[in-house]
Amino acid sequence: MSITNHRAGRHFLQIPGPSNVPDSVLRAMSKAVVDHRGPEFPDLTFDILKQLGPIFGTKASIIIYPSSGTGAWEAALVNTLSPGDKILAFETGWFATLWKNMAEKLGIKVEWVEGDWRRGVDPTIVEDKLLADSEKEIKAVCVVHNETSTGATSRINEIRQAIDNSNHPALFMVDAISSLGCTEYHHDDWAVDVTISGSQKGLMLPPGLGFNVISEKALLASKNASSRLCYWSWQEMIDNNKQGVFPYTPATNLLFGLQEALRLLHNEGLENVYARHARFAQAARIALENWGLENLCSIPEEYSNSLTAALMPEGHDADNLRKIILEKFNMSLGTGLGKMKNKIFRIGHIGDFNELTITGTLGGVEMGLAIAGVPHKIGGVNAAMEFLSNQ
Amino acid sequence: MSITNHRAGRHFLQIPGPSNVPDSVLRAMSKAVVDHRGPEFPDLTFDILKQLGPIFGTKASIIIYPSSGTGAWEAALVNTLSPGDKILAFETGWFATLWKNMAEKLGIKVEWVEGDWRRGVDPTIVEDKLLADSEKEIKAVCVVHNETSTGATSRINEIRQAIDNSNHPALFMVDAISSLGCTEYHHDDWAVDVTISGSQKGLMLPPGLGFNVISEKALLASKNASSRLCYWSWQEMIDNNKQGVFPYTPATNLLFGLQEALRLLHNEGLENVYARHARFAQAARIALENWGLENLCSIPEEYSNSLTAALMPEGHDADNLRKIILEKFNMSLGTGLGKMKNKIFRIGHIGDFNELTITGTLGGVEMGLAIAGVPHKIGGVNAAMEFLSNQ
Amino acid sequence: MSITNHRAGRHFLQIPGPSNVPDSVLRAMSKAVVDHRGPEFPDLTFDILKQLGPIFGTKASIIIYPSSGTGAWEAALVNTLSPGDKILAFETGWFATLWKNMAEKLGIKVEWVEGDWRRGVDPTIVEDKLLADSEKEIKAVCVVHNETSTGATSRINEIRQAIDNSNHPALFMVDAISSLGCTEYHHDDWAVDVTISGSQKGLMLPPGLGFNVISEKALLASKNASSRLCYWSWQEMIDNNKQGVFPYTPATNLLFGLQEALRLLHNEGLENVYARHARFAQAARIALENWGLENLCSIPEEYSNSLTAALMPEGHDADNLRKIILEKFNMSLGTGLGKMKNKIFRIGHIGDFNELTITGTLGGVEMGLAIAGVPHKIGGVNAAMEFLSNQ
Amino acid sequence: MSITNHRAGRHFLQIPGPSNVPDSVLRAMSKAVVDHRGPEFPDLTFDILKQLGPIFGTKASIIIYPSSGTGAWEAALVNTLSPGDKILAFETGWFATLWKNMAEKLGIKVEWVEGDWRRGVDPTIVEDKLLADSEKEIKAVCVVHNETSTGATSRINEIRQAIDNSNHPALFMVDAISSLGCTEYHHDDWAVDVTISGSQKGLMLPPGLGFNVISEKALLASKNASSRLCYWSWQEMIDNNKQGVFPYTPATNLLFGLQEALRLLHNEGLENVYARHARFAQAARIALENWGLENLCSIPEEYSNSLTAALMPEGHDADNLRKIILEKFNMSLGTGLGKMKNKIFRIGHIGDFNELTITGTLGGVEMGLAIAGVPHKIGGVNAAMEFLSNQ
Repeated sequence: MSITNHRAGRHFLQIPGPSNVPDSVLRAMSKAVVDHRGPEFPDLTFDILKQLGPIFGTKASIIIYPSSGTGAWEAALVNTLSPGDKILAFETGWFATLWKNMAEKLGIKVEWVEGDWRRGVDPTIVEDKLLADSEKEIKAVCVVHNETSTGATSRINEIRQAIDNSNHPALFMVDAISSLGCTEYHHDDWAVDVTISGSQKGLMLPPGLGFNVISEKALLASKNASSRLCYWSWQEMIDNNKQGVFPYTPATNLLFGLQEALRLLHNEGLENVYARHARFAQAARIALENWGLENLCSIPEEYSNSLTAALMPEGHDADNLRKIILEKFNMSLGTGLGKMKNKIFRIGHIGDFNELTITGTLGGVEMGLAIAGVPHKIGGVNAAMEFLSNQ
Repeated sequence: MSITNHRAGRHFLQIPGPSNVPDSVLRAMSKAVVDHRGPEFPDLTFDILKQLGPIFGTKASIIIYPSSGTGAWEAALVNTLSPGDKILAFETGWFATLWKNMAEKLGIKVEWVEGDWRRGVDPTIVEDKLLADSEKEIKAVCVVHNETSTGATSRINEIRQAIDNSNHPALFMVDAISSLGCTEYHHDDWAVDVTISGSQKGLMLPPGLGFNVISEKALLASKNASSRLCYWSWQEMIDNNKQGVFPYTPATNLLFGLQEALRLLHNEGLENVYARHARFAQAARIALENWGLENLCSIPEEYSNSLTAALMPEGHDADNLRKIILEKFNMSLGTGLGKMKNKIFRIGHIGDFNELTITGTLGGVEMGLAIAGVPHKIGGVNAAMEFLSNQ
Repeated sequence: MSITNHRAGRHFLQIPGPSNVPDSVLRAMSKAVVDHRGPEFPDLTFDILKQLGPIFGTKASIIIYPSSGTGAWEAALVNTLSPGDKILAFETGWFATLWKNMAEKLGIKVEWVEGDWRRGVDPTIVEDKLLADSEKEIKAVCVVHNETSTGATSRINEIRQAIDNSNHPALFMVDAISSLGCTEYHHDDWAVDVTISGSQKGLMLPPGLGFNVISEKALLASKNASSRLCYWSWQEMIDNNKQGVFPYTPATNLLFGLQEALRLLHNEGLENVYARHARFAQAARIALENWGLENLCSIPEEYSNSLTAALMPEGHDADNLRKIILEKFNMSLGTGLGKMKNKIFRIGHIGDFNELTITGTLGGVEMGLAIAGVPHKIGGVNAAMEFLSNQ
Repeated sequence: MSITNHRAGRHFLQIPGPSNVPDSVLRAMSKAVVDHRGPEFPDLTFDILKQLGPIFGTKASIIIYPSSGTGAWEAALVNTLSPGDKILAFETGWFATLWKNMAEKLGIKVEWVEGDWRRGVDPTIVEDKLLADSEKEIKAVCVVHNETSTGATSRINEIRQAIDNSNHPALFMVDAISSLGCTEYHHDDWAVDVTISGSQKGLMLPPGLGFNVISEKALLASKNASSRLCYWSWQEMIDNNKQGVFPYTPATNLLFGLQEALRLLHNEGLENVYARHARFAQAARIALENWGLENLCSIPEEYSNSLTAALMPEGHDADNLRKIILEKFNMSLGTGLGKMKNKIFRIGHIGDFNELTITGTLGGVEMGLAIAGVPHKIGGVNAAMEFLSNQ
């Protein structure tokens, strides 16, 4: 990408992922490639797996694929399910829909609970649906933890409770792609069977790594699934990882970056990381409210730590606003996806981020609203700053 | 990977891939992540695709996956074939065998031509096998261009001729993972239907990108194949790439590196790149001959530009030699894989490499042979230098 | 500097230099060292000198020292003056005072015009002083263009006019360390004899390079000066630079960075660069005014493009404010130097900087004022944003 | 420096400095600039000073200038001497001559002992000269430890002994620019008064930092010296360094690199670092001898750990050989300086270097000799490898 007209200052990458990557992570990625079969490589693997555990809240097996998050979705499905199996899934937004579409392409039947894209999964519906499934045809309940397209975070622990209440044996699969590293996550405590994630959000890495975390129940299911698979095969990964290696060439330099990103997260302290995300998310919502814009997410308990989606006033084009902000203020915001096209813009406050970056970010939005002639009250940044300075 | 005891000087990564990555490529990879949906991203995509064309020798569609080369193998198979289909494949070495194993896991029947791992695919056998397939059950002929485990390079043009001679409609799939960028490659002229490759060899990148190049015939086949796929789906990639984007998040920073690596290759000139690889490969063989070691590859026309595998004298352990060379001389060499375990060591001369690096590499081998007490004549490096200074 | 507690997000380095360095400049500095006597090196030297010319507004000789700006000060004095010579200098602030002190240490007599640190050099005093010097004892008039300690920018063109009016032969020496690259500068048009600068401000580099630009008159003076010198010798530099080399080992990697920084400045366009600095400086002053804080600089025509110094309300400690802002918001501001100790804080808005960075910067100050309990009106950021969104 | 024709592989920078810089040092240098007056900076300063001590063999004050080594020479002279003072200096080669020339420019009288550029300083002459100086007019004995232009290393301990024998109060100044980090050095034990060094040799950094190490006696002398100085002033540096800061802006990013380079040296172990340099120097001499080329250094006890200079056979042009080697093999060698112009070439084996790099280096020389038609016996590399493999 040749720069034909240099833009001064740092680009504000405030889409809800890929997120801003710390310089030290970028530098770690620029280390010389090493022999992934050499005697020192296992130390890298073991250290990464060890450091990942607390972030996923697990002692279970963690799989790292050279893939996007989409690949990690596919891995979760094909390892555990057979063509013709049924899953229960929920239309919480664009990514939940894409995952559903993928399942169908892979031959899986989907019981699809429609939604208005303004909230997470309703636990009571989960319970009802599972209770209604007297034949136990549903093999898995698939939930997107944080809907990157809407900024609504499903309550995984309550959904778990709903599944338990229904006494249904379905696997529980959770896409934690844009929640991991931003929001507490407890694979083990929530008894999730497959957690899916990616590198380019709260883990503060460029895209290129996909993750699966696998419960014993999921691993058992994988023995009986008939989907044909090779690249995504869990068992080979697990067997190799035990030796600190991978069944095929791993994305070495992304692993170097991952190790450094994990070091940064643990050095800051996971509790601090989550609290920081919560704080900036609240600052964004305060700004939104003060501008008089509506949060797409309609359920306060489900507000996202990772992003905030703002509904545009009727008759105003979100992508025009985003274009103005990009051109005038060198900031990328998230577009409205699917049926939210042009209706919302999304502010990412994810990853490597601090008080002044969120202030600059919200400032860019407020100035953009003014320039684009979008009706709003000024003072959003002011209110956010007041909040931040009282923390 | 914490460095507990710093080793001075640069590590010699002389495995046959991942190869040494030029500093400017590593620096390009350390650029800040960008919005892969932003207005400037398509220029990057288009530039990369344009620069890749001549290296694959094609004007056809090139697919770039966030994956290892193994993923690109899987993509080739699942896009074009249906479970139960038959392919013709050849035991040229470890990687051909792994690819065959993958096909079987994916439900594909393999007509497997056994081999001694000391040569490439015999075109006459291809012709015979296809002529014998009167029912046209064979849907694809799968060949590894350069066997990374043995250092034998199959003659793709002659195999193409053999297929043509047989008048058989099978697709022709070629794994060019460790030949691309080292050896001339002509996807279009050789009428290859699917070319498979990866980033970490002649393209001088870290691992993490897989490639498929697709003929019209292959694309047509993909419409009729019944394998279930999503992540690997060609059509979505092609449709998105036309707009300069990707159906899911691409491995942005590896793409930054790819763009720079392609710039370097074209700046050097592809003919010069191939001649350079041929020159260093010949230098390695001259050293081998002068040491009195045998080249695993038994067919001179099939000697590899990318690596040279040396047979150890009876009773001497290749991995012990490799260990000594790593510890004493900070150089990684390739191990013997599968049935070549301990019987060979492989010298990579691939990627970003020059006269003094090959001299240092061969010097490390010669010194290692002495220390390990492996019977050999001295003078291999001398002879290689004489050759190199006469070029 | 081991990071024992990682702080998320990017540090805001808002001291008035060293300034934030663009990532591509840092990457350029991380290129492998080259032979500074090799055949390709002169291209680098020539390109840098060519690109520097328009920034200094000169076609005269530009000298690049491996030194800090302090070294470049010394070079200007020792090349042109002899011990016992007299110069005319002005107490515009801390750095003017340091330069005066240096001159005295070097055996030069200084006619020192005291000042209140709230404005630049008064051209009428220059004229008066020179007219009064009937013996022409004053060998040089020394002016700091932009006082980094106060944020007042002397009007070089008017001072030039004053010198001309006095018909005095004194050399005109200007310290453009913190103005260069932020404010228009015209070495030739303003008939400056020696311009002094450094790398770490508007040139967007780390510290480590000092500059002298030399008029013919200054060069002639250097032939007659009796200060003893070697490292700082202009003539050897000029002679060597003509061949594209340096009389002693240059700071190679800082030159790599300089070349890239110059590319960025010219790519943005110098007029745009200066306008951008003016815009952000005005935004800072608007914020200041709205907070009800007083600008240290009392002459509006002399407001600085590079920094803004704010006077603290009586009884409030500037360094306590700075400490709070650093700890809470990860932003460095400039301290009050010398007699301004604790009385002011300085906001750098220099170098690689954009609308959202200045917004974040001013936000940090506003939040810091609140936390520190410094009396102020809120709304500074608001007003600055209103200004910025109307540009 | 635009690369118009990419050259594959890594450049071999085998001049005797600047030396090859480890990647991790280059990466450290690409960290974001920090506030050199901020609260965390002193930790950096203190850590660097602490790590430097054992390399200089001292507990005395170490001064770090943003300068080349030439600047550090000047600092040593102007801090301790007054114009008109006399020093005793020795023509060991080009750099000793340059230092002498500098002293004269600075108004210092030099008692100059001529030499043939083929050996270091003769301790008996030192003793004779000092004994003859009954008036004690000689204020300092100036010695270049390792003559970078010739590859002869003076025996500092024996020269110290000679000074002691003469009972002469002269200061002892030693240029350790190209010996430091390659050869044992004992500022304290050898009672050196001023040690001068630079960053770009054994310290494995790019150029841009100069060093002075100062005995109590030198510091005392500095109080009485009348040279006019400011930038180079020791006392200000010492006073500031005690607080972990610098009297003027330090070259921050070179300090980042220095910290990392020191970490690497100590991690390898200084004894190991010196032994490694000795080993590769010996390998170079073995190659030289086997080629039948003469070592410029005629005193075996004075062979250099850092470089080896080879005399060309009569009638053969060293720079032509160097040009061929640069063009064909992408390796820079050192030219003959001053009266050695065209008569010698210099092989640097300094800094970040290992067995395979020295093998490649010597291979490049041997191939170059063949191509250039320089009479020589083949087998130099062979013999060097035999030596290296027996270590």
